[in-house]
Amino acid sequence: MNTIPYEQMVSEFRRVLGTTGFNADDAAILARVFASNSRDGVPSHGLNFFPGFIADVTSGRVDIKARAQPVVALGAMEQWDGQRGPGVLNAIASMERAIELARQHTVGAVALRNTSHWSRAGTYGLQAADAGCIGICWTNTTKLMPAYGGLDKRLGNNPLVLSIPRPDGDHVLLDMAISQFSGGRTGTHKRSGEPFPVPGGYDADGALTTDAANLERALPIGHWKGSGLALCLDLVAALLSGGKTTTQIARGGKEAGVSQVYLAFDLSRVGDSAQMIDSVQEALNDLVSGEMVVGQQVTWPGQRSAGRRRDAERDGVPVEQQFWDQVLAL
Amino acid sequence: MNTIPYEQMVSEFRRVLGTTGFNADDAAILARVFASNSRDGVPSHGLNFFPGFIADVTSGRVDIKARAQPVVALGAMEQWDGQRGPGVLNAIASMERAIELARQHTVGAVALRNTSHWSRAGTYGLQAADAGCIGICWTNTTKLMPAYGGLDKRLGNNPLVLSIPRPDGDHVLLDMAISQFSGGRTGTHKRSGEPFPVPGGYDADGALTTDAANLERALPIGHWKGSGLALCLDLVAALLSGGKTTTQIARGGKEAGVSQVYLAFDLSRVGDSAQMIDSVQEALNDLVSGEMVVGQQVTWPGQRSAGRRRDAERDGVPVEQQFWDQVLAL
Repeated sequence: MNTIPYEQMVSEFRRVLGTTGFNADDAAILARVFASNSRDGVPSHGLNFFPGFIADVTSGRVDIKARAQPVVALGAMEQWDGQRGPGVLNAIASMERAIELARQHTVGAVALRNTSHWSRAGTYGLQAADAGCIGICWTNTTKLMPAYGGLDKRLGNNPLVLSIPRPDGDHVLLDMAISQFSGGRTGTHKRSGEPFPVPGGYDADGALTTDAANLERALPIGHWKGSGLALCLDLVAALLSGGKTTTQIARGGKEAGVSQVYLAFDLSRVGDSAQMIDSVQEALNDLVSGEMVVGQQVTWPGQRSAGRRRDAERDGVPVEQQFWDQVLAL
Repeated sequence: MNTIPYEQMVSEFRRVLGTTGFNADDAAILARVFASNSRDGVPSHGLNFFPGFIADVTSGRVDIKARAQPVVALGAMEQWDGQRGPGVLNAIASMERAIELARQHTVGAVALRNTSHWSRAGTYGLQAADAGCIGICWTNTTKLMPAYGGLDKRLGNNPLVLSIPRPDGDHVLLDMAISQFSGGRTGTHKRSGEPFPVPGGYDADGALTTDAANLERALPIGHWKGSGLALCLDLVAALLSGGKTTTQIARGGKEAGVSQVYLAFDLSRVGDSAQMIDSVQEALNDLVSGEMVVGQQVTWPGQRSAGRRRDAERDGVPVEQQFWDQVLAL
């Protein structure tokens, strides 16, 4: 696969964002977020996402002048309204505010309504961890997945993030859609033809399948468990933010105005930093030290993306040429 | 299956708890919790759990005089030490305090270390919902499950709860271990010989199996996703509480001194109650209204247990006679 130096990718994204109408500050932030996502091995929310994002801006689906605004301060929690502004910028502002609240109250929460697609969920977990905080955040989505026992799409895949800071910046980062495979990864498998490593859902005949191209219904992780988790994440985000549920989002047609929750816990207020670092390291060492299934390797969440980040910093960011060409032509 | 009137079960449990040394108040609380768990269709953490709990008390593994104590107040979050006291009483006190903190700060958190098995996780989600709060809580456990790609047990199954209040008391309640089947449910299937409805893990040959009796390694929901989620829940609980990780718990042999997190969000501070009730009801109606897989029925999390509760209030609580006889003989 062709590679592009990270800074060149940032710079190219910045150019396009500037042309599209973003001011220099916003363009700089967004360019880094999208390039970082590709660098960390999540091109579905980096380079491959970028042309669609620009299309959403030029079509007016995302209003680049709009920004998340605080609606009401409720102590350790605040409600914000995303004004349908760019989801990435709204998300960064929301997690930033949750971190500020955590500096004051140990736990801080921002519930954001009426925002747009935040791209890679893990971005905001890393943001919290970079600030020395545990981060927990999630978003609802439009209907993407049937409930357990159902045939029709009724649930969002509602990506959920948990992050735990590590001093070298290789944070523990869980970033998971509640469907076994995210929309982005399903797209990657469709294009490559490579089968999923485990069934991703049901085909048109109702049989479990590893073929992304024949995926009719996505499978929630753990069957009824993921089905229930997706519903609960949706309801909590909508209630706390005063925003839309998945049911209400889907009624509007194309996904717009989603609801999100950002939680930060300021570890510097909680306990002894050296002891925390040791506990985390000991748990990670223990996790990866056991006997492995033949041909497999146990990793902790975030380990692979941290490795890809280091590789890409050395060797450049791998790109699917068709997407890079699209960006160059923008 | 034989049934016992709910109040008779409460009264019998209260008698045994009194004999075992609990004071009248604690015996009344515990008797209701265990009987409620059986009544709601979770006998593995109700009647079937009760004799083992009494054995833990008489063996001194649980100190019935010890109680969770606040260690440090950190604004909207507090750290508590469970003193290895009875897990159910510690959990109730912790969620109660999280609710009080939420009344003041909208979000309230208690991180509890050094506590004992809390029996049915959902109990504390219902407690929050009865108080008009969204409840989120989880516990770590000793090593019960291999990580994705591993053969040795390295992870807890770390039950996670999310609850959303409904005005009729039939709250939305997700109560899930991160293993596809909890220890309690695996035991039930072992005794009955009934196969799991989906694979619960791997047998000794490394093949996925629905046979509880041949289950060698439990499967985390969503493979690498549940594996990562279990690790993160463990680390967050241990760091916030200053307590033990799963690695550290397992080092001590039999499970003792687990770490837990309790979060409550006071919805009465957040928004318009009537509108919230409508949003939740609309989402639940939508969820269960689609086309179903033949022979299946979509339900929302908590719906079946709410139904079992109503059935048991009318017809008595179903019991496996061997366990009821054990209690009568205590």
